[in-house]
Amino acid sequence: MGDVTSASAHETTPAKRRGRRPAGQDTKTALISAAREVFGEVGYDGATVRAIATRAGVDAAMVNHWFGGKENLFARAVLELPFDPRDLVAQLLSGPMENLGERIVRTFLTRWDTGGGDIFTALVRSVAGHDQVAHVLRDLFLNQLFSKLVGPGDADRPELRATLCASQLIGMGMIRYVAKFEPLASADIETLVDAVGPNVQRYLTGEL
Amino acid sequence: MGDVTSASAHETTPAKRRGRRPAGQDTKTALISAAREVFGEVGYDGATVRAIATRAGVDAAMVNHWFGGKENLFARAVLELPFDPRDLVAQLLSGPMENLGERIVRTFLTRWDTGGGDIFTALVRSVAGHDQVAHVLRDLFLNQLFSKLVGPGDADRPELRATLCASQLIGMGMIRYVAKFEPLASADIETLVDAVGPNVQRYLTGEL
Repeated sequence: MGDVTSASAHETTPAKRRGRRPAGQDTKTALISAAREVFGEVGYDGATVRAIATRAGVDAAMVNHWFGGKENLFARAVLELPFDPRDLVAQLLSGPMENLGERIVRTFLTRWDTGGGDIFTALVRSVAGHDQVAHVLRDLFLNQLFSKLVGPGDADRPELRATLCASQLIGMGMIRYVAKFEPLASADIETLVDAVGPNVQRYLTGEL
Repeated sequence: MGDVTSASAHETTPAKRRGRRPAGQDTKTALISAAREVFGEVGYDGATVRAIATRAGVDAAMVNHWFGGKENLFARAVLELPFDPRDLVAQLLSGPMENLGERIVRTFLTRWDTGGGDIFTALVRSVAGHDQVAHVLRDLFLNQLFSKLVGPGDADRPELRATLCASQLIGMGMIRYVAKFEPLASADIETLVDAVGPNVQRYLTGEL
């Protein structure tokens, strides 16, 4: 599912085709299927990377290679998060630090708006309903995403800043997609980038 | 339930006892009971102020007198919100405008922390689960609370500002009480007043 982009990029540049790529995509797909089965059978804590890899018929090292660990595999396979946090961090950090807050707001709204907010709503239901999912999302959003965005600015209390950023983004999503309070629910993305971006920026680099 | 404070204040100052007070409390209690029954039987849209008052055996004008309308009565009786937005607005506005954001954060955290966040969690479940509840909460939080807090500053786009304030407060509650991401979940109230207050203030009076 998440490989649509790279697969079509592939088709338009056949000269660059390399032998290992399709095999890699097969490995990813097999791991996602196996992960859904194993997480479904024994739960998040009971599922081991080894068991998932065995079910997929690949080496356990492939889980780290393609997903960076069990948390991300769970996020992609079960929560169906449509992105890898490692890609997102790299993308967000490519630009001036003083506009990072605006880039974060624009990026999240653009992704969440796709599909009419279903991604965000599913995410909130997951957090509210299951402790183990909350645990995975905490790891994803704080350790793998926001902590890495706060880090480069060398600010005090990076963990608090990361949770403050998360609070504003989750709140914006709640109002836009779940409660649907107007005018925020229908505001265009750049209006919200201007309104919310500087507040996220203060959490990243400002004085708290 | 909500009358515990005034009832006990009453007992300690018997000299100030006035005839109409207990009757008023009886009327409020009767209206809350009747409202729970009628809302439960015919739903929010089907319930009329007149039907609730008739069930309680009081005049329909008492609903406006004690609750300011059907929305507030629903909020107090069914959602069990422990405050009247009219009191809250008056309390928050008594102080300098430039610190209003901090007072808002302090007031909400103090109320929500009481009971370990159950109030907030119930509120989010209500919004996510029922369109009619979302409608009532939108009226309460936007029309009766935040619009009145934004208004006095004479700022542009007051409706957008009100929803932005709501987004930050709801997000803070989500992280603190529902997702329980540390260190925000255990941070003391004044740390969060310093961190979040200025961001709420920007939504109230700053340039967007």
